Amino acid sequence: MTTTSTPTSAPGTPSGPVRIGLIGSGRIGQVHAASIHRAEGAVLQVVADPFVAGAESVVARFGSGQTRATTDALEAIAAEDVDAVVVASPTSTHVDLIAACLDAGKPVLCEKPIDLDITRVDGLRERAAAARAAGLPVALGFNRRFDPHFAELHRRVAAGEIGALEQLTIISRDPAPAPEDYIKVSGGIFRDMTIHDFDTARWFVPDVVAVTAVGLRQFSDVIAKHDDYDGAVVTLVGAGGQSVTIINSRHCAAGYDQRLEAAGPLGTLSVGNVTDTLVRSSTGASGEAGAPFQTFFLERYAQAYSAELESFLAAVRGAELTGPGFEDGRAALVLADAAGVSAREGRTVRVDLSA
Amino acid sequence: MTTTSTPTSAPGTPSGPVRIGLIGSGRIGQVHAASIHRAEGAVLQVVADPFVAGAESVVARFGSGQTRATTDALEAIAAEDVDAVVVASPTSTHVDLIAACLDAGKPVLCEKPIDLDITRVDGLRERAAAARAAGLPVALGFNRRFDPHFAELHRRVAAGEIGALEQLTIISRDPAPAPEDYIKVSGGIFRDMTIHDFDTARWFVPDVVAVTAVGLRQFSDVIAKHDDYDGAVVTLVGAGGQSVTIINSRHCAAGYDQRLEAAGPLGTLSVGNVTDTLVRSSTGASGEAGAPFQTFFLERYAQAYSAELESFLAAVRGAELTGPGFEDGRAALVLADAAGVSAREGRTVRVDLSA
Amino acid sequence: MTTTSTPTSAPGTPSGPVRIGLIGSGRIGQVHAASIHRAEGAVLQVVADPFVAGAESVVARFGSGQTRATTDALEAIAAEDVDAVVVASPTSTHVDLIAACLDAGKPVLCEKPIDLDITRVDGLRERAAAARAAGLPVALGFNRRFDPHFAELHRRVAAGEIGALEQLTIISRDPAPAPEDYIKVSGGIFRDMTIHDFDTARWFVPDVVAVTAVGLRQFSDVIAKHDDYDGAVVTLVGAGGQSVTIINSRHCAAGYDQRLEAAGPLGTLSVGNVTDTLVRSSTGASGEAGAPFQTFFLERYAQAYSAELESFLAAVRGAELTGPGFEDGRAALVLADAAGVSAREGRTVRVDLSA
Amino acid sequence: MTTTSTPTSAPGTPSGPVRIGLIGSGRIGQVHAASIHRAEGAVLQVVADPFVAGAESVVARFGSGQTRATTDALEAIAAEDVDAVVVASPTSTHVDLIAACLDAGKPVLCEKPIDLDITRVDGLRERAAAARAAGLPVALGFNRRFDPHFAELHRRVAAGEIGALEQLTIISRDPAPAPEDYIKVSGGIFRDMTIHDFDTARWFVPDVVAVTAVGLRQFSDVIAKHDDYDGAVVTLVGAGGQSVTIINSRHCAAGYDQRLEAAGPLGTLSVGNVTDTLVRSSTGASGEAGAPFQTFFLERYAQAYSAELESFLAAVRGAELTGPGFEDGRAALVLADAAGVSAREGRTVRVDLSA
Repeated sequence: MTTTSTPTSAPGTPSGPVRIGLIGSGRIGQVHAASIHRAEGAVLQVVADPFVAGAESVVARFGSGQTRATTDALEAIAAEDVDAVVVASPTSTHVDLIAACLDAGKPVLCEKPIDLDITRVDGLRERAAAARAAGLPVALGFNRRFDPHFAELHRRVAAGEIGALEQLTIISRDPAPAPEDYIKVSGGIFRDMTIHDFDTARWFVPDVVAVTAVGLRQFSDVIAKHDDYDGAVVTLVGAGGQSVTIINSRHCAAGYDQRLEAAGPLGTLSVGNVTDTLVRSSTGASGEAGAPFQTFFLERYAQAYSAELESFLAAVRGAELTGPGFEDGRAALVLADAAGVSAREGRTVRVDLSA
Repeated sequence: MTTTSTPTSAPGTPSGPVRIGLIGSGRIGQVHAASIHRAEGAVLQVVADPFVAGAESVVARFGSGQTRATTDALEAIAAEDVDAVVVASPTSTHVDLIAACLDAGKPVLCEKPIDLDITRVDGLRERAAAARAAGLPVALGFNRRFDPHFAELHRRVAAGEIGALEQLTIISRDPAPAPEDYIKVSGGIFRDMTIHDFDTARWFVPDVVAVTAVGLRQFSDVIAKHDDYDGAVVTLVGAGGQSVTIINSRHCAAGYDQRLEAAGPLGTLSVGNVTDTLVRSSTGASGEAGAPFQTFFLERYAQAYSAELESFLAAVRGAELTGPGFEDGRAALVLADAAGVSAREGRTVRVDLSA
Repeated sequence: MTTTSTPTSAPGTPSGPVRIGLIGSGRIGQVHAASIHRAEGAVLQVVADPFVAGAESVVARFGSGQTRATTDALEAIAAEDVDAVVVASPTSTHVDLIAACLDAGKPVLCEKPIDLDITRVDGLRERAAAARAAGLPVALGFNRRFDPHFAELHRRVAAGEIGALEQLTIISRDPAPAPEDYIKVSGGIFRDMTIHDFDTARWFVPDVVAVTAVGLRQFSDVIAKHDDYDGAVVTLVGAGGQSVTIINSRHCAAGYDQRLEAAGPLGTLSVGNVTDTLVRSSTGASGEAGAPFQTFFLERYAQAYSAELESFLAAVRGAELTGPGFEDGRAALVLADAAGVSAREGRTVRVDLSA
Repeated sequence: MTTTSTPTSAPGTPSGPVRIGLIGSGRIGQVHAASIHRAEGAVLQVVADPFVAGAESVVARFGSGQTRATTDALEAIAAEDVDAVVVASPTSTHVDLIAACLDAGKPVLCEKPIDLDITRVDGLRERAAAARAAGLPVALGFNRRFDPHFAELHRRVAAGEIGALEQLTIISRDPAPAPEDYIKVSGGIFRDMTIHDFDTARWFVPDVVAVTAVGLRQFSDVIAKHDDYDGAVVTLVGAGGQSVTIINSRHCAAGYDQRLEAAGPLGTLSVGNVTDTLVRSSTGASGEAGAPFQTFFLERYAQAYSAELESFLAAVRGAELTGPGFEDGRAALVLADAAGVSAREGRTVRVDLSA
């Protein structure tokens, strides 16, 4: 006896697989393409990149027989057979592409940051709010909220395990600085690197009211030349008196240093660095030693990128957007700008994120 | 400009996706079905189970539009559109199903054990050897060899990091005993539970020459009633003088306790228990505490099952079979039988695995 | 054949046991008395306390047959049979007692702080410098420099293991706030609690040039009532661009939280919390859990107090004073005062510790 | 006002300091001398060693003005001003010296083992039992029972934290083999090295009934030449069905490997290796690494030796002897002999420790 499975609905209907248009086929675009491939109930429908060979390569690796490549992002967004959009193109294109998605009524997951310029972000703010009110998901790719370790810590804090959060400590060190060409256009450490930590901070303490930042010049003449910092210590204070301490460096000999600790009246919860395996060694040269830290964000947050896409897909299918959205992207940029002022002027800067 | 990806070869040709026939749709069958779904270059072609609703459910969850369910395992093995077979049916069927795969010239990945009766295993031994010589993969599902942590430890031992292996310690405790109905037909702790550890031992020390086992009756009247042990300590010695110590228990309050340690003249390598996340807590009730151990094998070895399938697929595509094969399945059973004799008679039993 | 040991020199000569006058028989005085008792080559000669029963109790527990109790600290300092003085009396007496020791030409180990008032400290500064120049040890009881864990971390940083120090992180949380009566006269969190961390900071980065402090009010109405903070985050910057981040809280559910981490271009060195024993447990209720943190400073720094005394004794015997001295006590207070200004005014305060 | 402390009782009376005769001034004798020096309420009265310069050196370092050196152990034991005896001389002298202490009615703490020959031990057994019955302490120096980490684990097991003990695992590896001259006369690995582990086993499971030992020859031709093993795995079973697994090696690259783990129905308690400090490092060369293990027993069990002496002193002052005594020394030797038979004959050996 043999039976054949019948799909319960056709692709493209609300209950069929979500057909995704991916804008950008670079490093982070490929990460999203792989997540789409692995996800149940999603297909990669079109990949757009002005560099079409890149798009074609992503299609070949992660597409189905129907997937197409295009050079035209707007066409991909507008296409009838595209249900939702993932934006993984350069930062300067984000505002326009989000706007196009809103125009087309398409849910969008956009890589962070929205833009380096708060006025451009604010220009889109009202429309994003309207979309949200209308149930159209505009998700921001702050991947760390989806890391299983951080998310479990957050869940346990939210469940009250340590009482009301008092102090959060975020240690975040990149393995090595980006090349000078990137540094030049990065927007500075606060808008480029700390922005992730600002979002993590707001995940725990949404209503930050004060920013005190100390910019550091510890090792890189190149970074100093561009009037940027190669490290920073930032202290945020929330409306409830909570403190968040962020410690950044643009280099770290041991790899990508990503740690989080939350303290409250009932205890402390922490997440240390992740290693590829749990193998530990003891030799004459050292005591017990763990495996090396994972190298950089693609490894460290591999699971997070998948979970981020799953969360977006759930919102596309009608669930409430639980991950970071447009306002979160804006708030992180406001904090980054405030940190820049604080570091330059040597004073605490007060912010009102709801303003 | 738009292009569409063209598959470079039709399914069923050597370079197309491997079409898999899965025999068994129970708990472990579902694990394999999920691995097949996730794998690049593999499709679930048919699922066979006398309980057809089970097979249909697996088809619905993990199949493509072409996947079919059947009650007839032999039909699935023989089917022209099946390139390779995964056997996840009850132990008593394994010998016959492997034989059917050999008849059909189909690569097979069979769950452990081959059988509980060494004479039945030996009855298939020559044909399995011939298949191997002919390049037909007969893979045994000793999942632990594919665990990324254990595999990395093995790789580092093989690379000489601790010198020639001297002492291996395997701690393996189940969270709780199986129900009495299972205990009755399990073949006893050595053939049912320790058999995994025997295979792990042989992964490091293939040529075991002596088995000294102590059977324990520590907590379960039910297990004792069936003349079985609820724990054991087994010491193996290899031809090169290496020792392997296996410590087993049928229960463990903290979860599934799976640890491995290798010692040599230059150092020690170890793998401790795996937790779902790295969250650690410090409260008034305790010092720093990690997350709970993963509950049981489906969680603990989730990655291993995927890697096991990938390894099998590579062999199906023509690579040498690097994972455990028929002879490994037989050797583990020989050691289990020797351990039974040793425990009952209170003496070291010498074995010749090549005989 | 029997021989009797002959002391190689009489007590009181430079090579005999150092005869110590202890001022103060309270909690910390008792710690010093126990250290003196355990030390080779030191005897407790006299214990002074206005509350003479306290002094007598210390004499009974830690004295030899010759030890005497007195109510008169100045008599104890001046006594001919006292070679060196340990001051463990209330903070307000420190300046006068150090002065008396300088008058008497006696080496002195004084508990921190020198005083809560920088003008009183500065009034003694010149004389302390002259004493130092003359080889008379004036040691300050910053116990943490003598903790074996922190000291080993410092030694490895100094040995260049991580390259030039870039970022130091000090987490320091008390188990619970002191009683209100103490809070009132404590001088505030920066002068009372953070002062230890300021000294630890200067141990690694002596030439601090900027102080940015954020005072926190997170849980204690009592502390707020006295216009004090119950937590703080302080960022120091050194002349070489190094950063030091201090995170304080007046409470911590898990005990006394004392951690230190140093990062440089070649790596990171850290010390976590100390437990009484290394016993770890795994139960159904949690994953692997360590023993509780040590309760408070008397337990956590028990070894440090002994090492501190040994270091002082070495200086008394003629070695150079390697531990913290008068200038270190003053510098910590300058940083505490600067932190107070910074927190109140919301601005970075620049300091010149050599001024 | 000055007062002088008055001792509340004269030395030598039950409440005065315990005056100790120390037999042996070698490495372990010096450890005991230092413990006596540090103890409150004990004085080193006489040190006996045929090599009198050794005794004199110990007197000079750890004695008071009254301490004397002698070549004559029996004189030291008999001396009127000696209240209790610590025997730290070569193993072959232990039986006679314990007998002399019994004759003199003096409490004795004797280093392990009592003797390498069970018949000599049995010759003293009745007298030791009579002494015990009469309240005269005969303590055996199994130092590991006094290690604070192991003792806390034992206390928590005894308190029922993991339920009735089921499985104990003892990993015990020396850093490097003793020189050939020592190996020759050591009595073999079971009587020389494993004997400590047998005592640890009996501390948890006093009534061992079966011994199954596997002797290993893994790396040392020298040890093999003397018909001895350079490693071993021993499984003990207790009358209550408990199992104890001991894993030994005569070498370990990472230092002195001393670990203990107890498992019961409610959980697991373990103690890992001890390091001098808690400093951890993370560099490009490795993940997070701890400090090296402590080198060997003098470092690893430094605290244990002090606690062992304190326990003995308490018994001398009239408390019940809670540490290991003569019967424990004998039982460990019985197990060692049984292990030798088991390893040679390849069979489980049953023992009756009460016989």
